[in-house]
Amino acid sequence: MKYPPTINNLIECFKKLPGIGEKTAERLALSVLDLNEETINLFVNSLKDSQTKITKCEKCGNLTETQPCIICQNQTRDHSVLCIVEESQNIILFEKIGTFKGLYHVLGGLISPLDGINPEDLNLATLPKRIKEENIKEIILAIKPSVEGETTALYIKKMLEDTDVVITKIAYGIPLGADIDYIDPMTLSIAMEGRMKIS
Amino acid sequence: MKYPPTINNLIECFKKLPGIGEKTAERLALSVLDLNEETINLFVNSLKDSQTKITKCEKCGNLTETQPCIICQNQTRDHSVLCIVEESQNIILFEKIGTFKGLYHVLGGLISPLDGINPEDLNLATLPKRIKEENIKEIILAIKPSVEGETTALYIKKMLEDTDVVITKIAYGIPLGADIDYIDPMTLSIAMEGRMKIS
Repeated sequence: MKYPPTINNLIECFKKLPGIGEKTAERLALSVLDLNEETINLFVNSLKDSQTKITKCEKCGNLTETQPCIICQNQTRDHSVLCIVEESQNIILFEKIGTFKGLYHVLGGLISPLDGINPEDLNLATLPKRIKEENIKEIILAIKPSVEGETTALYIKKMLEDTDVVITKIAYGIPLGADIDYIDPMTLSIAMEGRMKIS
Repeated sequence: MKYPPTINNLIECFKKLPGIGEKTAERLALSVLDLNEETINLFVNSLKDSQTKITKCEKCGNLTETQPCIICQNQTRDHSVLCIVEESQNIILFEKIGTFKGLYHVLGGLISPLDGINPEDLNLATLPKRIKEENIKEIILAIKPSVEGETTALYIKKMLEDTDVVITKIAYGIPLGADIDYIDPMTLSIAMEGRMKIS
C-alpha cells in the first residue's frame, strides 16, 4: 500500500464503521479530499461532540444533548402514555409519522440470553418507578415480533403485574400494499390470530 | 427529525460522501457513537490532515505528503519508463501487482469535452518537459478503453510526436478466467484485433 499515511488512517477509520469494507473505505477516504473546508470542520467538530455532548436521557434513555431530552421536556405531549422501543432510532420513525403524542422509553436492546443480554443490561430497572411517579396510564410495546421481542414483552408484562397500567402492543400483521402470496407463514398466522370484526 | 444536533450534523457530513444516502448516513452516524476515543481522535486528526498535509506530487501528480512523492524519490526504480494513469488510486493497483518498476504520471481525469474536461484541465502540460528533462525512453498508457480514454491517448500521442519516446498502451482483451459467452462484443472485437502469434 503506497497511500500517504493520512489516507491510510482515514481508510482504517472508515473500516471501523458497520458495512464498510476495504474498497468502500478506500473510495470514501479519497472522496474526503474533495470535501470543502466547511464540511471538514463540521465533520471534525461533530465527531468530537459525539464523544462529549451526546448522552442518554436519564428519563427515557433516548440519545440527547439536553437533560431530559426534548421529547420528555415537551409539555404539550401526553405524559400519561409511554411507547417502549428497542433503540433510539425507532423514535425517529414514530416521530416521522407524527401521530403518537406520548412519551417514549428506550430499552437499548432486547432480552437475549443466548447473546448474553439479560434484563439487567437493558433500561428496565427505572420503568416501574417511572410508571408510578409519572402516573403513566398506558404503555405501548413497539418492539419487533421476534423470540427476543416476545421474551422482552413477557418480562415487562410480568414486571408490571402489580401496577394498574394498561399494557398494549402494536399490531402485527400484513403490511399495507403487500401481496398475500408473498407473506411468510408466521406473519399470516399472526394476522389470522389478530383478526378484527369489520364494524 | 428529532436527533440531537450533533447526530444530525454527522448525518449531513456522511451524506456528502459518494454513494451514501439518508438511511446509510443515519446508520453510520449512530455507529460513530460506538467508536472508542482512540479511533475518534485518529478520525479527527486524519480529517484535518487531509486538508493540510495531502498535496499532489509536483513531478507525477500522485497524492503525497512529501515532495516529490515516495515513488518519484525511489532511486531503485527505473526512471526511464512512465506509466500514465487516470487517477492516483490506479497507482495502488499497479503497486499491488508489484511487477512495474518505473515511475507514474497521474492525469487527474480523461479528456471529455462533453463534461467540460479539456486537455488543459489535466496534468498534461508538464509531460513533454518531463520526458525531455528526465530522459524518458518509454511511456505506457494505462487508461481505460472508453471514448474518453481513446481521445486522451490520441491527444498524448500527438503531443509527443516530435519526441522520440516510445508510446505503448496496456493490452485490452478478454480478462483471465472469463467465459467468452459472457464477453461484450466490443471487448471481443478488440481482442480479435489485438491477436498475437503463438510462438
